[in-house]
Amino acid sequence: MSDGLIRDLTDEEARASLRAKWGMAEEGVIPAWIAEMDYAPADCVTDALVDAVRQGVLGYPPFETGGQLGEAYAGFAARHFGQHVDPGHVRPVVDVTAGVRLLLDVLSGPGPMVMPVPAYSPQLEIAQITGRERVDLFVDPEAERAELDLDQLDRLLADGAQTLLLTQPHNPWGRVFTRAELEGVRDVVVRHGARVISDEIHAPLVLPGARHVSYLDLEGTADHAVALVAASKAFNTAGLKCAQLVIPDDATRKAIEDVPMARNDSWSSLGIVASIAAYTQGDAWLAALLERLDQQRTLLATLLAEHLPAARMRPLEATYLAWIDLRAYGHQRPAELAKERGRVWVYEGDAFHPGLSGHIRLNIATSPERLTEVVRRLASALA
Amino acid sequence: MSDGLIRDLTDEEARASLRAKWGMAEEGVIPAWIAEMDYAPADCVTDALVDAVRQGVLGYPPFETGGQLGEAYAGFAARHFGQHVDPGHVRPVVDVTAGVRLLLDVLSGPGPMVMPVPAYSPQLEIAQITGRERVDLFVDPEAERAELDLDQLDRLLADGAQTLLLTQPHNPWGRVFTRAELEGVRDVVVRHGARVISDEIHAPLVLPGARHVSYLDLEGTADHAVALVAASKAFNTAGLKCAQLVIPDDATRKAIEDVPMARNDSWSSLGIVASIAAYTQGDAWLAALLERLDQQRTLLATLLAEHLPAARMRPLEATYLAWIDLRAYGHQRPAELAKERGRVWVYEGDAFHPGLSGHIRLNIATSPERLTEVVRRLASALA
Repeated sequence: MSDGLIRDLTDEEARASLRAKWGMAEEGVIPAWIAEMDYAPADCVTDALVDAVRQGVLGYPPFETGGQLGEAYAGFAARHFGQHVDPGHVRPVVDVTAGVRLLLDVLSGPGPMVMPVPAYSPQLEIAQITGRERVDLFVDPEAERAELDLDQLDRLLADGAQTLLLTQPHNPWGRVFTRAELEGVRDVVVRHGARVISDEIHAPLVLPGARHVSYLDLEGTADHAVALVAASKAFNTAGLKCAQLVIPDDATRKAIEDVPMARNDSWSSLGIVASIAAYTQGDAWLAALLERLDQQRTLLATLLAEHLPAARMRPLEATYLAWIDLRAYGHQRPAELAKERGRVWVYEGDAFHPGLSGHIRLNIATSPERLTEVVRRLASALA
Repeated sequence: MSDGLIRDLTDEEARASLRAKWGMAEEGVIPAWIAEMDYAPADCVTDALVDAVRQGVLGYPPFETGGQLGEAYAGFAARHFGQHVDPGHVRPVVDVTAGVRLLLDVLSGPGPMVMPVPAYSPQLEIAQITGRERVDLFVDPEAERAELDLDQLDRLLADGAQTLLLTQPHNPWGRVFTRAELEGVRDVVVRHGARVISDEIHAPLVLPGARHVSYLDLEGTADHAVALVAASKAFNTAGLKCAQLVIPDDATRKAIEDVPMARNDSWSSLGIVASIAAYTQGDAWLAALLERLDQQRTLLATLLAEHLPAARMRPLEATYLAWIDLRAYGHQRPAELAKERGRVWVYEGDAFHPGLSGHIRLNIATSPERLTEVVRRLASALA
């Protein structure tokens, strides 16, 4: 039982340390919105950061960080995903969303970007920022299992879309696409000569029962795909600003290396330190975390059955973000009601799926007690 | 004598902490290139960072950080520049160059951007990255005193340029523009209805004898200008990734606040912590630093007179970056020679002024002993 490694923050500690999630919430409101966990960071990360700060590692990171960061990520990918990553294929970037933007700007043709929807909300705007149209690959809210509709993808690419932004494991569905599903995607993409940006930030958070397959682990993807990975989601270090690009294709890597510094040099020195520590020393903490999140998803199912029996939720295969259909309760904007009446802050579903009412995204990465209280409050606000 | 606050790093310490400047240099080469100082960080910054790391401040920074960061910067600007800044006008951004890009993308018309040249090298590429043409406002390398040519600026704006990227204090000239000079710039800009981006990252590094005037401190600039400021250059924390926009105009501030998150949310939590500590508790350290840099510029003049008497250098009014004309020694690429023959790494001048030969930018923020050795090596390589 390694769960002792996961230490729950008290409300007071959480308000002091999680300055967006908790710091922006009114006193008395339980925040269960943005994707951060109410747990103390792994000691290996904290210790590495304190050492680095005391050593004065506050200056520019080295321009070429393939080396240590690449080795660290390659080791992590081998142990956790059974994936071979060449350390030399790993490049830093400030964060995943900035990485998506960089890849669109530098690699993609001018045609539209296909976005599976619902989608991580800041990325709904990324196509437009890069001067592209976004075309949506909707998942039917009634579907039993959230899958990518390959016929629809085929039509969108035939109509001129040139890039697919894949998010897998998926946020907010919590789905882990299987190898067979990903191969289906690849076949459609290859037929149209499109590019894939594979946002795999949640890969370390695949829960027992599923297994992460990187899109790059499929044959025939290296020449058209780049993966975006990070330690920041699994290790709760979003504020440290270092994600990584995995670029297996030589010419593509050269294209990214050749971009002017002003386009891509904003990652932080301490973000690199934290990432290396997490990737090389964080396995025990991560195992304990997954055990805890597994317990939390079981608890959530129990709580929903008891307090919100008409809520509909698909199995959470990865992430700590539950996508819940509350339309049975008849409220257009359940998150708004939950905050007003229930003093609990969850995301409104339409932030991820524009126009879709009656859904919420609920963050379960907290203590069992807080999660219990959150669901009770949701129920009293909505029922 | 407060100079005791400035602690010189040993070579070994510098290699461990300054991972770009020193870490990328071969053993035996003295690095005097990128703009970082070979001094240990201020204790107030280190202590604030260690406290924050121990407290777990590793997550998303609050989305609205006007408050504490704004107050901290406003206090600093009042004490150091005699400038009134409304704390509510201050907004974070990941770094100054990314800030320039954001401002161009969001605020500027599509016309060319005027760039005074020589210029900070990564910013030479920024216009192109945003899809604009760069038009150069050259300073004559023969000029006795580096000034902005207002007639040339007038012509460039008349020909369609819509933005001026002002860098002041200037890097690499080390000039501090006077209020009268800046008023001249303003008058030309206003006549053409152009915008100004004022990169003031070196403002805290104005040396005794000169005084920083923010472009925003001039009347009639608020409606067309945004300033970019940071603690990172003066406090040697470039790797922590937090600069600030000062936006006095309400509509402009609203335009920046309304940009999609994916365009501007990459600043780091620890960068905010370090900035607040530097702005609120760093005055004594900064005073000691300026005293040291004042001594270093005096030492440089002495060393040049002795070892490189044909070198030409204008008075260094700010920054620790000396722009030195070495054409008298007859080498096209003196920095290249210096590295090969002299084992000292300085910037080639053409990185800042494309096409200009025979110049270098030399970083003097080191110990007197190292600076002495650097100039000796330069002399032996070039003479």
